[in-house]
Amino acid sequence: MPVNLTSPAAADLLPVSGVLLGTAEANIKRPNRKDLLIIRLDDGATVAGVFTTNRFCAAPVTVAKDHLAAAKGIRALVVNTGNANAGTGEQGMAAALTTCTEVAKLMACSPEQVLPYSTGVIMEPLPVEKIVAGLPQAVANLTADNWHNAAHAIMTTDIVAKGASRQVVIGGQTVTVTGIAKGSGMIHPNMATMLGYIATDAAVPQALLQTMVKAAADASFNSITVDGDTSTNDALMLIASGKSGVAITEENCAELQAAINAVAIHLAQAIVRDGEGATKFMTITVEGARDVAEAKQIGYAVARSPLVKTAFFASDPNLGRILAAIGYAGVNDLDVTRLKLYLDDVLVAENGGRAASYQEADGARVMQQEDITVRVVLDRGVATGTVWTCDFSYDYVKINASYRS
Amino acid sequence: MPVNLTSPAAADLLPVSGVLLGTAEANIKRPNRKDLLIIRLDDGATVAGVFTTNRFCAAPVTVAKDHLAAAKGIRALVVNTGNANAGTGEQGMAAALTTCTEVAKLMACSPEQVLPYSTGVIMEPLPVEKIVAGLPQAVANLTADNWHNAAHAIMTTDIVAKGASRQVVIGGQTVTVTGIAKGSGMIHPNMATMLGYIATDAAVPQALLQTMVKAAADASFNSITVDGDTSTNDALMLIASGKSGVAITEENCAELQAAINAVAIHLAQAIVRDGEGATKFMTITVEGARDVAEAKQIGYAVARSPLVKTAFFASDPNLGRILAAIGYAGVNDLDVTRLKLYLDDVLVAENGGRAASYQEADGARVMQQEDITVRVVLDRGVATGTVWTCDFSYDYVKINASYRS
Repeated sequence: MPVNLTSPAAADLLPVSGVLLGTAEANIKRPNRKDLLIIRLDDGATVAGVFTTNRFCAAPVTVAKDHLAAAKGIRALVVNTGNANAGTGEQGMAAALTTCTEVAKLMACSPEQVLPYSTGVIMEPLPVEKIVAGLPQAVANLTADNWHNAAHAIMTTDIVAKGASRQVVIGGQTVTVTGIAKGSGMIHPNMATMLGYIATDAAVPQALLQTMVKAAADASFNSITVDGDTSTNDALMLIASGKSGVAITEENCAELQAAINAVAIHLAQAIVRDGEGATKFMTITVEGARDVAEAKQIGYAVARSPLVKTAFFASDPNLGRILAAIGYAGVNDLDVTRLKLYLDDVLVAENGGRAASYQEADGARVMQQEDITVRVVLDRGVATGTVWTCDFSYDYVKINASYRS
Repeated sequence: MPVNLTSPAAADLLPVSGVLLGTAEANIKRPNRKDLLIIRLDDGATVAGVFTTNRFCAAPVTVAKDHLAAAKGIRALVVNTGNANAGTGEQGMAAALTTCTEVAKLMACSPEQVLPYSTGVIMEPLPVEKIVAGLPQAVANLTADNWHNAAHAIMTTDIVAKGASRQVVIGGQTVTVTGIAKGSGMIHPNMATMLGYIATDAAVPQALLQTMVKAAADASFNSITVDGDTSTNDALMLIASGKSGVAITEENCAELQAAINAVAIHLAQAIVRDGEGATKFMTITVEGARDVAEAKQIGYAVARSPLVKTAFFASDPNLGRILAAIGYAGVNDLDVTRLKLYLDDVLVAENGGRAASYQEADGARVMQQEDITVRVVLDRGVATGTVWTCDFSYDYVKINASYRS
């Protein structure tokens, strides 16, 4: 079950002027569930995104990058679940392009103004005819207050829907930021993320928007892992409709960036809290590193370790496993006698071994919690990096041993 | 249960002249089980080894490296299970040195002529007094035909004991190679291995022996993974007693190297077949790579993927997960349209997607087997690399959620 996470209420997800959303039940993998989403943008919106670095990236990822590069002004995004359209070769490219063409007909725009996204099982042909058949239904319910349905329409193994809104006042005017995301397994983003869509009604030039989406991804989705598997289909998209009339420049972008980061971090943490089989949410903070990359390298080694993750599942303070993961993280000149390991406020290890003050009962107490912070202080620099992850349970195996059935 | 693996019979493990083994029940973690091993070497033996690269390497690893470097002629190795003496700081170093001193007294040698090894739980104080109390019992049963008991004495979560022998004729004389190993979890060797001890009665100069043990490790233990966790205590030791009278040089070492590699590969594969919770044994072979490192990089990405491993556990040919792992392996200029993926003899994917000839029934048939080969042909070079791994089951989680209890 998700760790301290519930689906947002419909009222929690604020409309973003200039952004309409519509969903459909297209029967792509199973009947009677929303599995298709169209996001329609008014003319003048800017769109930026970061995508998976997986070499087997999905056909829609390739098409979305091409269409963004064509820079004709994006008017629609289309997302299907139930099939990833990845590892599908030329047939998959044709299916992604067909989807764009059919959306373009309904939107009265060109296919290059449509960005496609798919998520689901890999290496099976996309049932494009089902998607095409479902598009009119999605178009028919396009409304601005539809983020809640949209969050549900992009779910796969997710148990709860993921969404968040923030408002900031910039130059006396209110700007809204709303985002949704999906993801639960195959989560180890690499310069990108699972599917995430964040929109604001600020007006942001495309180049600045690209900088801001990269910054938001690094602060959020590029700091999480569930199982260490980098998806073929990751994408985080940032949309700026401009309808608030607030113009953003490099000089005044800090507040908006902060609001976007807050939404992105909420969504990224929600993916981990809803990680497949998760019963615990762990924050791995590495302080005193030479640089952020080194801090995150150690954080990810701890966060990915199956032995650490199963110990947390068992609420067993078998914390030597954390030392082992720190030790094999690849920081080859690490002096382990200088570092300190804390579990929440409990000092666990120092001077290369267990702290004299450490009591098993203290470790056991923290391990009972659902939210736990592992804090590593390296004492070799001033940089800090944080990684969020979940534990590794019977249910992770169960979910992934039966995903296709 | 171990995959197509049973414990060797006592008669399968041939004595190596000049090498005596003795075991004891020292009650280190639990009563009524062998948990202490002494390997005594006659004067004149050479010893070489490779060790974990984990920065939190265990105290006995540090001491063993120091004692090997002192080059006083090793006379004994001492191994305890039930406690890793890792993450134990200065107290742990003192405990490892005390163990050597006490063994040296019984062997009438110097402490620098003793190599210590520990395996078990991390970051708990080594009960050195129990080890010291158990040493006389181990000394009392030192015999040359004791490899079978020795293989049992070093087990932790292992279900079956691991050992193998080979004999080769060199210059008309028979040379024997016998080895034992332990390991089942925290298996992702990095320039080293779990605990492994291989002895031969050939005479091998120490420098050549070091070259040979590194070659054997690369061909075997450095090609396996169970859970991606690199242990704090890995060590592979190669002992040459010289008692056969066969002198090995760089010119005539090929046959002996082949025999040593065969024993090492048997032991490494046995560790994977007995991997925690394993139900399947997978050979991941990557051909047509630019170099071996690239081939193994892709092989390890596939072998470590929890999604691939759970699909094998379920016997589910959800083979797109293998494409995803190949794609994120970090070979950034990989052209995925050129590679071919085979499951045993079944062509699964080519031209960037599922092969036209592929039938789900063929994939399902192979997935039912206990031994499965995943073959990836990259078509970008002539190098090949192989990685052995096991699947990821409920029992992996169960074992590691309850290891300390």
